[in-house]
Amino acid sequence: MTKDSKDSKDSYLVGLIGSGIGPSLSPALHEREADRQGLRYLYRLIDIDTLGAPPEAVGELLRAARDLGFDGLNITHPCKQLVIPHLDALAPQAEALGAVNTVVFEDGRAVGHNTDVTGFAASFARGLPDVALERVVQLGAGGAGAAVAHATLTLGAGRVTVVDALPERSAALADSLDRHFGPGRAVSATPDRLPDLLARADGVVHATPTGMAAHPGLPFPAALLRPGFWVAEVVYRPVDTELLRTARALGCQTLDGAGMAAFQAVDAFRLFTGREPDSARMLADIAELAGAGADALSGAGAGAGAGSGPGVGVAIGANPAAVRTASVRLPK
Amino acid sequence: MTKDSKDSKDSYLVGLIGSGIGPSLSPALHEREADRQGLRYLYRLIDIDTLGAPPEAVGELLRAARDLGFDGLNITHPCKQLVIPHLDALAPQAEALGAVNTVVFEDGRAVGHNTDVTGFAASFARGLPDVALERVVQLGAGGAGAAVAHATLTLGAGRVTVVDALPERSAALADSLDRHFGPGRAVSATPDRLPDLLARADGVVHATPTGMAAHPGLPFPAALLRPGFWVAEVVYRPVDTELLRTARALGCQTLDGAGMAAFQAVDAFRLFTGREPDSARMLADIAELAGAGADALSGAGAGAGAGSGPGVGVAIGANPAAVRTASVRLPK
Repeated sequence: MTKDSKDSKDSYLVGLIGSGIGPSLSPALHEREADRQGLRYLYRLIDIDTLGAPPEAVGELLRAARDLGFDGLNITHPCKQLVIPHLDALAPQAEALGAVNTVVFEDGRAVGHNTDVTGFAASFARGLPDVALERVVQLGAGGAGAAVAHATLTLGAGRVTVVDALPERSAALADSLDRHFGPGRAVSATPDRLPDLLARADGVVHATPTGMAAHPGLPFPAALLRPGFWVAEVVYRPVDTELLRTARALGCQTLDGAGMAAFQAVDAFRLFTGREPDSARMLADIAELAGAGADALSGAGAGAGAGSGPGVGVAIGANPAAVRTASVRLPK
Repeated sequence: MTKDSKDSKDSYLVGLIGSGIGPSLSPALHEREADRQGLRYLYRLIDIDTLGAPPEAVGELLRAARDLGFDGLNITHPCKQLVIPHLDALAPQAEALGAVNTVVFEDGRAVGHNTDVTGFAASFARGLPDVALERVVQLGAGGAGAAVAHATLTLGAGRVTVVDALPERSAALADSLDRHFGPGRAVSATPDRLPDLLARADGVVHATPTGMAAHPGLPFPAALLRPGFWVAEVVYRPVDTELLRTARALGCQTLDGAGMAAFQAVDAFRLFTGREPDSARMLADIAELAGAGADALSGAGAGAGAGSGPGVGVAIGANPAAVRTASVRLPK
């Protein structure tokens, strides 16, 4: 609450509240950028599992963090919705999505943002600036899926078809998107329709955990890809997933998940500090860090602390336990 | 709770809980030393006045700090006693004094220390290594007085006579010291006996706020000083008090309060980090910082944030509001 006013160096204290966040890259991502900017910056992991606290404790943790001088917090699974009643205001993208991944304490008020949405939008605009967006298929309707669907529609996608192994989940997301972006902008479909949907789509956004070290493989058969199609990936550990490699080999334009992971951190850093981060450097950092993490998770390396958790991108709220069932299994 | 294990730089999060601590030099003192050691280190001020919290909230703040990843805390007025029931263990000097100014979180346990005691002892041993300690007079029996009396007796003082404007307070401190250090090691006296006491003493420890910018002047007449006498000061803002100047001019050996302020921080830094601080650099820092603070408090400068509070050394728990009456007024 009270900043040290006698030291010339600006100082920032932030953290991440969530479950199973030990392998998060956020501390290193934020602190590396802060070091380049000459800021005193500390990013702490506040893992409710380690604390033995229920997800509902997020409100109490939020108040405690404000009282103890935190400047802001990232919030991840399973607290992104639960935190909302404890906030004083919401940024438009967080209000629309009904999920918050970033809280900024400003003059005693707690303001919620969602940089998963803005981060995916920034990454997409940078990595796939000219692709057609008339018909988009999205796999995965979990927390990450909701965020990236909002981003895709904000970027001007004509229609997003949401596919999930849990039909009630894809239907709920499509309904919510439709209400927010207008009739017909979003529909849902079951996985068995995927061959037909992909054949008529401009591109696909992949928002399930398939392709992570713990969930190897492709989310759908390679035969459904074709030249001229684009593929945007949410998984970033590893950065180069089997889906991306397969798509590139078939002549698709691709966007890796490291961009979203980097830009959600870029946007959060900007919100926390009011300073403009170097997004190119943060992109390079996440590629390096995610690579190291993937090695550790797959047993090829033993980086301290990197191998002890689910290895999931905290940025995207995609806890494997929560969204495992979203991985699409096509009928044989 | 969970340290960032992916960044090569060790990181430490600490803070100070107390009342009216805005002008504290502790953030700058700790962070400067950490910067020299290449540590990521953040020191936050947690002011119960700003929070609108009662002193009894220290227990809740302590638990919250542990949960949110703090490595330790300094504790000051009015929480140094109140924090004790919330701790899992006490270091000997904290247990003897019944006051804690430093809490270290170790494997989920909260351990209380008192670096006011160890800090004054280290400063005294360094600054007045060869002085006689058979008969010591101490002015002031508040929180700072209790800490330095413990330190003086630990250093081997034969007898400490505690003088305070509040007779019940000096008597209580003397009783407590006597119980801990053995019969006859401490006695109390009223201010009217000061001329006689000082005439027969080897030196005096001054532990009232007299001499601070807000409480100028001498705590007793200069005529009571003489060559060969020693004077140890607890006030450190300004570092060079009227008492010290007067004593030096009369041929006394002197010890300023900056040493205690520096060494309590040295000892706390060592406890928080397990690393050995550079005490000479921290002494130089506090002389510089306390000088700047004194300027601001006296209106000669306008250092940001330094002029807005009581300007009291948080290290010694000497809140002027609490110990103002301890300043000795001799009978005319």
